[in-house]
Amino acid sequence: MWGGRFGSGPAAIMQEINASIGTDKRMWREDLDGSRAHADMLAAQGIIEPADRDAILDGLDRIEREWAEGGLVEDLALEDIHMHAEARLKELVGTPAGRLHTARSRNDQVATDFRLWTRRACDEAGAGLAALQQALLDRAEEHAGSIMPGFTHLQSAQPVTLGHHLMAYVEMLRRDRSRVADCRRRLNECPLGSAALAGTGFPVDREMTARALGFDAPTRNSLDAVSDRDFALEFAQAALTAGLHLSRLAEEIVIWASQPYRFVDLPDSFSTGSSIMPQKRNPDAAELVRAQPGTYLGAVTLLATMMKGLPLAYAKDLQQDKEPVFKVFDTLQLALAAMTGMVRELGFRTERMRKVAAAGHSTATDLADWLVREASVPFREAHHITGRAVALADEKDCTLSDLPLDELKAIDGRIDAGVFDVLSVDKSVASRSSFGGTAPDQVRARIAEAREELKAESGGQCPGDIA
Amino acid sequence: MWGGRFGSGPAAIMQEINASIGTDKRMWREDLDGSRAHADMLAAQGIIEPADRDAILDGLDRIEREWAEGGLVEDLALEDIHMHAEARLKELVGTPAGRLHTARSRNDQVATDFRLWTRRACDEAGAGLAALQQALLDRAEEHAGSIMPGFTHLQSAQPVTLGHHLMAYVEMLRRDRSRVADCRRRLNECPLGSAALAGTGFPVDREMTARALGFDAPTRNSLDAVSDRDFALEFAQAALTAGLHLSRLAEEIVIWASQPYRFVDLPDSFSTGSSIMPQKRNPDAAELVRAQPGTYLGAVTLLATMMKGLPLAYAKDLQQDKEPVFKVFDTLQLALAAMTGMVRELGFRTERMRKVAAAGHSTATDLADWLVREASVPFREAHHITGRAVALADEKDCTLSDLPLDELKAIDGRIDAGVFDVLSVDKSVASRSSFGGTAPDQVRARIAEAREELKAESGGQCPGDIA
Amino acid sequence: MWGGRFGSGPAAIMQEINASIGTDKRMWREDLDGSRAHADMLAAQGIIEPADRDAILDGLDRIEREWAEGGLVEDLALEDIHMHAEARLKELVGTPAGRLHTARSRNDQVATDFRLWTRRACDEAGAGLAALQQALLDRAEEHAGSIMPGFTHLQSAQPVTLGHHLMAYVEMLRRDRSRVADCRRRLNECPLGSAALAGTGFPVDREMTARALGFDAPTRNSLDAVSDRDFALEFAQAALTAGLHLSRLAEEIVIWASQPYRFVDLPDSFSTGSSIMPQKRNPDAAELVRAQPGTYLGAVTLLATMMKGLPLAYAKDLQQDKEPVFKVFDTLQLALAAMTGMVRELGFRTERMRKVAAAGHSTATDLADWLVREASVPFREAHHITGRAVALADEKDCTLSDLPLDELKAIDGRIDAGVFDVLSVDKSVASRSSFGGTAPDQVRARIAEAREELKAESGGQCPGDIA
Amino acid sequence: MWGGRFGSGPAAIMQEINASIGTDKRMWREDLDGSRAHADMLAAQGIIEPADRDAILDGLDRIEREWAEGGLVEDLALEDIHMHAEARLKELVGTPAGRLHTARSRNDQVATDFRLWTRRACDEAGAGLAALQQALLDRAEEHAGSIMPGFTHLQSAQPVTLGHHLMAYVEMLRRDRSRVADCRRRLNECPLGSAALAGTGFPVDREMTARALGFDAPTRNSLDAVSDRDFALEFAQAALTAGLHLSRLAEEIVIWASQPYRFVDLPDSFSTGSSIMPQKRNPDAAELVRAQPGTYLGAVTLLATMMKGLPLAYAKDLQQDKEPVFKVFDTLQLALAAMTGMVRELGFRTERMRKVAAAGHSTATDLADWLVREASVPFREAHHITGRAVALADEKDCTLSDLPLDELKAIDGRIDAGVFDVLSVDKSVASRSSFGGTAPDQVRARIAEAREELKAESGGQCPGDIA
Repeated sequence: MWGGRFGSGPAAIMQEINASIGTDKRMWREDLDGSRAHADMLAAQGIIEPADRDAILDGLDRIEREWAEGGLVEDLALEDIHMHAEARLKELVGTPAGRLHTARSRNDQVATDFRLWTRRACDEAGAGLAALQQALLDRAEEHAGSIMPGFTHLQSAQPVTLGHHLMAYVEMLRRDRSRVADCRRRLNECPLGSAALAGTGFPVDREMTARALGFDAPTRNSLDAVSDRDFALEFAQAALTAGLHLSRLAEEIVIWASQPYRFVDLPDSFSTGSSIMPQKRNPDAAELVRAQPGTYLGAVTLLATMMKGLPLAYAKDLQQDKEPVFKVFDTLQLALAAMTGMVRELGFRTERMRKVAAAGHSTATDLADWLVREASVPFREAHHITGRAVALADEKDCTLSDLPLDELKAIDGRIDAGVFDVLSVDKSVASRSSFGGTAPDQVRARIAEAREELKAESGGQCPGDIA
Repeated sequence: MWGGRFGSGPAAIMQEINASIGTDKRMWREDLDGSRAHADMLAAQGIIEPADRDAILDGLDRIEREWAEGGLVEDLALEDIHMHAEARLKELVGTPAGRLHTARSRNDQVATDFRLWTRRACDEAGAGLAALQQALLDRAEEHAGSIMPGFTHLQSAQPVTLGHHLMAYVEMLRRDRSRVADCRRRLNECPLGSAALAGTGFPVDREMTARALGFDAPTRNSLDAVSDRDFALEFAQAALTAGLHLSRLAEEIVIWASQPYRFVDLPDSFSTGSSIMPQKRNPDAAELVRAQPGTYLGAVTLLATMMKGLPLAYAKDLQQDKEPVFKVFDTLQLALAAMTGMVRELGFRTERMRKVAAAGHSTATDLADWLVREASVPFREAHHITGRAVALADEKDCTLSDLPLDELKAIDGRIDAGVFDVLSVDKSVASRSSFGGTAPDQVRARIAEAREELKAESGGQCPGDIA
Repeated sequence: MWGGRFGSGPAAIMQEINASIGTDKRMWREDLDGSRAHADMLAAQGIIEPADRDAILDGLDRIEREWAEGGLVEDLALEDIHMHAEARLKELVGTPAGRLHTARSRNDQVATDFRLWTRRACDEAGAGLAALQQALLDRAEEHAGSIMPGFTHLQSAQPVTLGHHLMAYVEMLRRDRSRVADCRRRLNECPLGSAALAGTGFPVDREMTARALGFDAPTRNSLDAVSDRDFALEFAQAALTAGLHLSRLAEEIVIWASQPYRFVDLPDSFSTGSSIMPQKRNPDAAELVRAQPGTYLGAVTLLATMMKGLPLAYAKDLQQDKEPVFKVFDTLQLALAAMTGMVRELGFRTERMRKVAAAGHSTATDLADWLVREASVPFREAHHITGRAVALADEKDCTLSDLPLDELKAIDGRIDAGVFDVLSVDKSVASRSSFGGTAPDQVRARIAEAREELKAESGGQCPGDIA
Repeated sequence: MWGGRFGSGPAAIMQEINASIGTDKRMWREDLDGSRAHADMLAAQGIIEPADRDAILDGLDRIEREWAEGGLVEDLALEDIHMHAEARLKELVGTPAGRLHTARSRNDQVATDFRLWTRRACDEAGAGLAALQQALLDRAEEHAGSIMPGFTHLQSAQPVTLGHHLMAYVEMLRRDRSRVADCRRRLNECPLGSAALAGTGFPVDREMTARALGFDAPTRNSLDAVSDRDFALEFAQAALTAGLHLSRLAEEIVIWASQPYRFVDLPDSFSTGSSIMPQKRNPDAAELVRAQPGTYLGAVTLLATMMKGLPLAYAKDLQQDKEPVFKVFDTLQLALAAMTGMVRELGFRTERMRKVAAAGHSTATDLADWLVREASVPFREAHHITGRAVALADEKDCTLSDLPLDELKAIDGRIDAGVFDVLSVDKSVASRSSFGGTAPDQVRARIAEAREELKAESGGQCPGDIA
């Protein structure tokens, strides 16, 4: 394999640390695709004979059928997916197999395979994110007018609608999809033809292979092309941000399902019980999703640490690039599927939510705003007056709207009966009709826009299967 | 400050852990800008009187002059930059100051300030990246034909040109600039008007404030707007990738400056000596840049860990967002400036590079390729024949081009005198003229394109000053 | 400074990136202490004259007084704390100052200073952890018998006592203290005398300086001594684990303070209000502590990334070691102080806790265990029977202890009236008296032991002041 | 499984995200061991009948034989290793199987299994570290007197011996072993008997199970015991530091093997060639080890992120604890084995090293020290004089020892012929005989001590097999 200059073979431990086939076999389709495009181009440019090309293409088809049906048998001595494919091709078609490696190296080959794989991962992740958006939109529409307590610092702050709350996640996922799309766009240049590091002297047509594999263009610098793994890191980083959003939703589900809250009933299909406590219904799926930022951040960390301070061009350090990306993709897809199912099946206890929203003086800001609007009190002063009203309500253990008008007047003479119009949670929510606010009409308008946008964007996607 | 419901003030330790003024004062200009836009809009919508607006704007101008000249005096009791500005405004203009906080909250205010700051950071970082690209392009042009050993695994692989090597970094930085630009584009929505979490009941015009502050649009969901810090994470992630690229270049400079290499002479201006070893000239600047991925990755880690599992909407955890972003920006700008200076002043010892390139059998691939091209030997067989020639040259302690023809023929009869045409490093380099390859004409073509692109892109930038 | 071999000075940008005085000035006391011990040793070994030593020591004392009173004036041209001290010493005592740097280098000097500083940080952190343990022990004792719901998955699981819950944190902090102590023990070897990297030819007495500075021994290998930063990483790692524990407690406080829980009343002294919502009382201190694992993990990440792949011996990369360690220490101390105050002042609403514990079928396991114990039912079968009882109680919207005996008997004939003895939360808690269980007597026994242990261990500590 | 309160089974996606058997089956031996100890104790305490115990133990033995021979067949519906063992036991022995779960829960069971596994991992890792120390000691002894250039900043600094350089790593590994031992000591408390979270009402003897499983004591707080994963994090943290040390050595091997250095010949057994460049001999094993800190740091990050902000007690998030720890252990063991082989087989080119050491003015410090010692010049002044001598040697392109005496005298009149005694690399190295310095006698003394220490410590180890 190394041209016969090695006196002795690798140590067993070396073979074990060095072989990547256990991981990179997952890119076998991409490897065959890359070889097909390369063989076609070699023949088109007259670098190999048409007959050799035909033999090669036929052999690659046979390998595809074999591996699709029976799987690939790993052989540590053959190190990686490229050597497995080449060795099997040689067995199947003989000499022409030896001509396939003309004008290429494993360095540009693996870079091409991995970009192809990651491109499909971007498409799949985009589709998974869109599916969750869809589920959130459906539930948001259903609850565009359902009132719940809006929290800051997990303290009851102002009433909001459940639909508005769910739409916050639709926004987060919109950014996530746009990041994944940016990653896809940026990675879509083809390294094939960069050879080992310096390009090749054969008269290759890099535009042709790039086009054949769906890339926008060939990469512009061969040294960069074989040593760049930005796209792997960028995919992991985009997944991290998405994973953080999912973890926030997951945390909310865990809290909402907790007995003192009881804002939701967990569906049987996404809960588990206990081996010792028969009354339990645990939000396991949500907890697992909550923990997953660790996986994404761990992968980002691994990839960045691997790339730190590496001289050009290819170095074997880069072989540790695939495992974390595969792990990130699998984890994200599973999380998106689980959260989509969870969101669709979650039982929202809207009466309970409304009851909690009405407690906790969550319309105090409305009182302050009323004073500003109706009595021209500067906001800071209105804030102080309201503080005193809250203290009074606390003392009497009632809500703000239960306070008698005369006691309110005693706090500040400018208060009149009109104030009661703003102290109910319904009035409060309806009043916040600024663009992007929680008023039900605003929420419905945003839902409609998001549906349109999603429809328009999804048209451009091609969420194929990833092996 | 809290409306008088608190019986006792904060513990001293609470004040210390809670106050953010030491950090967020850096956004004082953004805070004043946000307030100006808000006051204008409040008046335009009839929410405050024109006279109040005028008093407020006048006060804000006076604060700007004061702080620009004398700096801001920190007061822990005033917590953050927003309260410092409001308190000073109250001292300067009295009652109208209290009306400025109508229809806004510190939650949307800080989100707006921080986006404005990060937007400028994106612009600045883009300009810094472009400046380094410019320096690399100039040196690459100068050395488009200078031969050096191309390495993989830090082992001599194939000769390349120094210009080609430097252009690899131009490519990396091109991606970095595009990531920073994507971050800027994505963050450019205005949170102002989201108020505490639910929007506001005042008839605000969010389009107006967004426009006034240079945003593309207002944010679409108030809960998301006050609790989103994606942009901070995305900026740190973009800086991380850029920092990894810089660390690779830095590592190369450290190795190239090491005595056994002596590929470069370090400029006095970017080196230091030793307090104990008078002969030393140390690549300190390069080493510091090499270490900086730790800073960026540390910041990504901090931000991601902070956001993990946070329920909506705003939580105080988010206050830890600014320090890492400021640190990332400062570190990156310093690194870019240092590397730009370093690249411009580095003394390349091209004779030494060429000499090392010629040793180490770096044209062995050329011999194999010649066998494929001229004698139709399948690549894998050609690779083996070449391996034997390399072993022979090793044995005789000479280069491949020094081997007598008859000894080469003895290895394989198909070799003839024509082979010597490809065994020199010049011929080798010139032959790799595939798109993106190392041949000098290719390198010059890529340089020309990159200059055009840089010129076109930089036209759109506005690299202002960041305080 | 570099022996005059440099033609030109550093670039301004170089000076900015290179100077560390802004950070390392914090070790000025340690630097002076190290110089004192070194000067004493040089004189004792006859390497310098007693008169020179006296001049040096006198100068160092004067510097200490100056800096203690007036602070140190930073000069970027003097790079670091070592050069600041040496330059000032030269001004104060002239020629003898030049002899102080005999047989040492900044490399062993900074390694010594930083170990001294980190050693004191370990002592301080240990004391801070102990203080929080003390507060937890006091509150645990107060509430050794107060019943609250024990959660798993944030679902009501089994009743526990609040004292038992608090004691879980005492255990965590016990491990944290032991990790900090291990870190201190391991770092306590003195690098002084390792010089630049190879040791020195002067007849130094490394045992003497080690002893004078309170180290257990001199380091054993000079190359390792100047390039080792394990202790910095280990300190950050120990802080990370402690910070994770604090974040768990902080999260609980945030949840407990949330309106639907209302398990605690937040003290005014560790809460804040809102600039817009007058009714708010936010657990800011707890939220900040919850977010801090990001700071510790970010520092671990920075330090590890910095050390990755560094060739021996000292490299300038290592200069980035101090800032993260200082940050970690400051953050941890502030967090410990805040949590100690918070724990001491938190108002536990034990009636509410008890009420929630009694709901939620938290004694279901007790029913299952009763079936095993009294009726010899295999546990798995008992678990199924109990599941049916829970379902019945759910259906009737009552607690398990409210179910009529005949209905229980209908589920399983082996159930008799004795079962009601185990279905109350008090009985349940009291019954779990296995070692380390939640029964009040167990909790009190563990508190007593922990107090003894803490008393014994704290005797050995010397929590001095860290500048 | 959940006591029949669930109307419908889990969604397919839920089963996939929830099941951990694919990972935790690796602890099957630990799980059986824990069950044996528990069954013995239950019988000894009269909680189950002796006959039941015998049936259980017999069944567990049969499972062990089955799984050792045929492996375990995964069934996602059985979730984890605990349910697999219990289900199989039930098939084998019937009713008594149902009594095994008395007084325990999967929460304390998994915590016990994982501690047992990690304890063995500590032992194994300790043995692997010791084996590498042994290899380093052997090569260090061989090269206690071989001279090489000592570098700081990768610039030639002072000559050192190769033995001294290798001993730096022995020191690092000594600290690593001590960290692993601390981790083992701290984790060695037994959670069994903590049950789900609150302890148990059955009269268990926790001392007995702890002793039977080799633990020092039972854990002290049941809530902590089921939710503590400090030991997993600590193991990963210890591995990280070790991995950083290995990455430094790996980086040195990569650089030393690079053609311009040629300090080492890579053994065939730990190198690879190229699929395209027949002359290549690549340090793949070293590169892979260099990249591995990413794996360790990624695992630390994952574990810390997972634990951040988790309320007590057990939460499903914790299920993500095993995969990273298993990965860390496998990676570390492979790295240690590869580096041990590499160190043993590396060909050191000591002549080349010595030649490089003699160039580069590496004895300049010796000249400065001579001036201090022999001519009483203050060090700072001596440093300047030497700087001028270095500049002169540079100008004449010769070494310091080649400078004529009169030209040296022209620089400073106090220099005499005695100076040439210190300017050779041998003299330089021999002179640095301070404790821990590079002088060959010092190196040999340290080797002897380290051998003694290693011998003494290894006596206490029990490096068993890990499945």
